[in-house]
Amino acid sequence: VTYCVGLLMDAGLVLLSDTRTNAGVDQVSTFRKMAVFDRPGERVLVLLSSGNLAVTQSLVGVLRERCVDAGPNLWTVRDMFEAARHVGDVLREIHARDAPALAKFNIEFVVSFLLGGQIRGEAPRLFQVYAAGNFIEASPDTPYLQIGESKYGKPILDRVFTWQSSLEDATKCALVSMDSTLRSNLSVGMPLDLLCYARGSLRVERRLSIDADNPYFNTLRRQWGEHLRQGFREIPALDMEHCVGRGTEGQ
Amino acid sequence: VTYCVGLLMDAGLVLLSDTRTNAGVDQVSTFRKMAVFDRPGERVLVLLSSGNLAVTQSLVGVLRERCVDAGPNLWTVRDMFEAARHVGDVLREIHARDAPALAKFNIEFVVSFLLGGQIRGEAPRLFQVYAAGNFIEASPDTPYLQIGESKYGKPILDRVFTWQSSLEDATKCALVSMDSTLRSNLSVGMPLDLLCYARGSLRVERRLSIDADNPYFNTLRRQWGEHLRQGFREIPALDMEHCVGRGTEGQ
Repeated sequence: VTYCVGLLMDAGLVLLSDTRTNAGVDQVSTFRKMAVFDRPGERVLVLLSSGNLAVTQSLVGVLRERCVDAGPNLWTVRDMFEAARHVGDVLREIHARDAPALAKFNIEFVVSFLLGGQIRGEAPRLFQVYAAGNFIEASPDTPYLQIGESKYGKPILDRVFTWQSSLEDATKCALVSMDSTLRSNLSVGMPLDLLCYARGSLRVERRLSIDADNPYFNTLRRQWGEHLRQGFREIPALDMEHCVGRGTEGQ
Repeated sequence: VTYCVGLLMDAGLVLLSDTRTNAGVDQVSTFRKMAVFDRPGERVLVLLSSGNLAVTQSLVGVLRERCVDAGPNLWTVRDMFEAARHVGDVLREIHARDAPALAKFNIEFVVSFLLGGQIRGEAPRLFQVYAAGNFIEASPDTPYLQIGESKYGKPILDRVFTWQSSLEDATKCALVSMDSTLRSNLSVGMPLDLLCYARGSLRVERRLSIDADNPYFNTLRRQWGEHLRQGFREIPALDMEHCVGRGTEGQ
């Protein structure tokens, strides 16, 4: 499994992915799920991948291949909407090529992607591209998107992240969300790939690979755990004497 | 969807369920998912249900029917293991009777159950019964079991609940776990059914229906939310200046 999250806000974009892949529990590896396409001063596009690794690597490979061809590609698309459509189109080509062969082995074409970034002339945008090549876009009302193992890390996003959050807060929030996921699901794992993009910068200035020894992330995990346990202790107990036994409904 | 959680510890058992059922988003109702079978001084059995409502209600109905018959039933089973086997057996009868008819309408036989309680002569025990009638048992290493929409509420259980927790802490933990689930999934809803069982008491003394106006639960939700936001604020921000841009991998 994978966990990737993208947070879009007025101040920019935060993108975070883990690197665990597994085909069964005895075949676990580390692969980067974040691919960056950037031309400083002109555009930054970041693709996060979840699902069948052969398919997601194919997609990134073909996207890069196209970048040196004459046809439409991530360097020539006019805006992020066109970029998302291009990713969907390439994904459909891969589906046409590979899905019939996979089907013979009962392997489903299960993938999904986050595409975030900014192209000069418009604001940063964030999309989720589905296996069918269709896609949705984040907005001030729904400012984050998740793919992969998304549920463990959703409550903290719902509680603290908004369109008005700072880049710093969004980064913290993404890392706390990842921490909850790492704790509850073994198949999501370190290192993490983090990219924080400030609106209008049009370059990759803040990108970090966070491994198991990263002092900041370890401090965040420890402090967050302590805060939770302390906050938990401070909540008063339910006064059980006021819970009257309602007896013998079962008889 | 449903969320039910059972926490087994040295001190006893806590069982909590929501009451939301839905068949599509425009057909939402409230049904109790907790059924109690108790004979004070002799046995307390609690069944929590998730899945197809017609099947889960059938199961509870047939279990009650059996209780007035001569054959094996929840009043006559010797221990909790036999009780779990009885629930599984009755579920298999319902499957044999109903599944073929459901299949004609492409309705899957999707249900699962938690069975917790104590029968005089042994300690409290907690089981999860699957749709196939097989089951697993909680233990000091894995002291809680969840059915239904379980992921949102899992992180807090993993962080604070252990076999050594008090009944009071386990109750708080179950309620916080439910709060996270209620916030992130609309199809889980109030009121909640809570039962706290003290080891050896062999009677239902602490049972509570928690509705949207319950002052304790509302305080817990508010305090927990405030703690989370405050704890989040207290975590220092990542020093982004130390994240060097790694440039132009995509070119």
